[in-house]
Amino acid sequence: MKRNLLVVSTSTVHGSPYLSYIMSEVQDFFRDVDEIIFIPYARPSGVSWESYSAKAAAAFAEAGMNLRGLETFADPVAAIREAKGVFTGGGNTFVLLKELYDSGVLDVLRHKILDGMPYMGTSAGSNITGMTIGTTNDMPIVYPPSFEALGVLPVNINPHYLDPDPDSKHMGETRETRIFEFHTMNNQPVIGLREGSWLEIRNEKALLKGALPARLFSQGKDPEELSPNTDISFLL
Amino acid sequence: MKRNLLVVSTSTVHGSPYLSYIMSEVQDFFRDVDEIIFIPYARPSGVSWESYSAKAAAAFAEAGMNLRGLETFADPVAAIREAKGVFTGGGNTFVLLKELYDSGVLDVLRHKILDGMPYMGTSAGSNITGMTIGTTNDMPIVYPPSFEALGVLPVNINPHYLDPDPDSKHMGETRETRIFEFHTMNNQPVIGLREGSWLEIRNEKALLKGALPARLFSQGKDPEELSPNTDISFLL
Repeated sequence: MKRNLLVVSTSTVHGSPYLSYIMSEVQDFFRDVDEIIFIPYARPSGVSWESYSAKAAAAFAEAGMNLRGLETFADPVAAIREAKGVFTGGGNTFVLLKELYDSGVLDVLRHKILDGMPYMGTSAGSNITGMTIGTTNDMPIVYPPSFEALGVLPVNINPHYLDPDPDSKHMGETRETRIFEFHTMNNQPVIGLREGSWLEIRNEKALLKGALPARLFSQGKDPEELSPNTDISFLL
Repeated sequence: MKRNLLVVSTSTVHGSPYLSYIMSEVQDFFRDVDEIIFIPYARPSGVSWESYSAKAAAAFAEAGMNLRGLETFADPVAAIREAKGVFTGGGNTFVLLKELYDSGVLDVLRHKILDGMPYMGTSAGSNITGMTIGTTNDMPIVYPPSFEALGVLPVNINPHYLDPDPDSKHMGETRETRIFEFHTMNNQPVIGLREGSWLEIRNEKALLKGALPARLFSQGKDPEELSPNTDISFLL
């Protein structure tokens, strides 16, 4: 395999514009791609596909890149089959995955990624690179035909990973508790990506990037902190 | 219909033992029930059915009540059919709902509740009284055959409702944003039950109980705060 992925926790860090904190990495990642196709299906706050694609296209245009929404193609499956690079934005993971199944895009997108096409995801768009969406933080507002996702990484992703607040009096489960519960029913490792962190996979070499460590949860083991710039190719 | 329900946000408030803050209400609610059946299927932190039932039975015994785990019956569907009162504990809502489907308990439990049998739920056990589990906070760690729940209330429940933190720099969606997203895909009102709050429905009269207001989300309207002791029978 020759996977090339940017698996990004969040599109936006506090106090800076959409994608700006990571845009130089994005430019480098897509440097050989003359048109990036944007998958707007996750629809954050229910925004229309058109509006969401326009927002992403504007941010990419400002950085000198050409991005086109998948909704502008008559045949989305054919569009992905011909794509040179794909970016899937965040929003609701269940809405995203259901539309990927309903449109038939999921399978062709998986094949393209496994064939080396550069793929970038943020938040929900990162979540779907894992084996299942079983570690999403989103509410199940629609019912997808399966929780199986792209599965182009042999792990699950938890974006926007949030550390427990030691002062909290809230009795809802912490993120860590939820991931432990996941491991009572599932085997694959889970990577908790804090905001401003991402995985960069180029030709089968995987690095953790960004300012913060990530938290690796393996079934039956204590969680492990991974430092920025750690080579995590062993997870592939 | 003659529904009798205690729909409780949380089993445990910070700094006090399991169920203790609400036990006098529970005693009153189940006063005519000589044996309460406990549904342990939500398995918080993956605990076994037996251990979970033992924990609930101990708390009920201390308050002079007799509670028996559903896992001790050879035929769970028959047990629920004969039940005089049922309590479903919290844990993972997906795990709970899947087991209710797989065991066949869901349908018979719905009929019993609509026939007036007292039913109490905490957290995930409250979530399933709504139309769907679409407003759970839990991770989708197993795939249930549907998101449709008991539907004995014409609303959805969000337990452990958490107000946005105005100082947060975290860019993951707030609970309120997630519920707004729910309403881009679903019509039913959502009741956000803060910790220590519950709905008490007796013979078709519904009250909001506990120290804190609840937050009512109706599609296309601004959210509304409901004061404790408000008559919310209009939501039935």
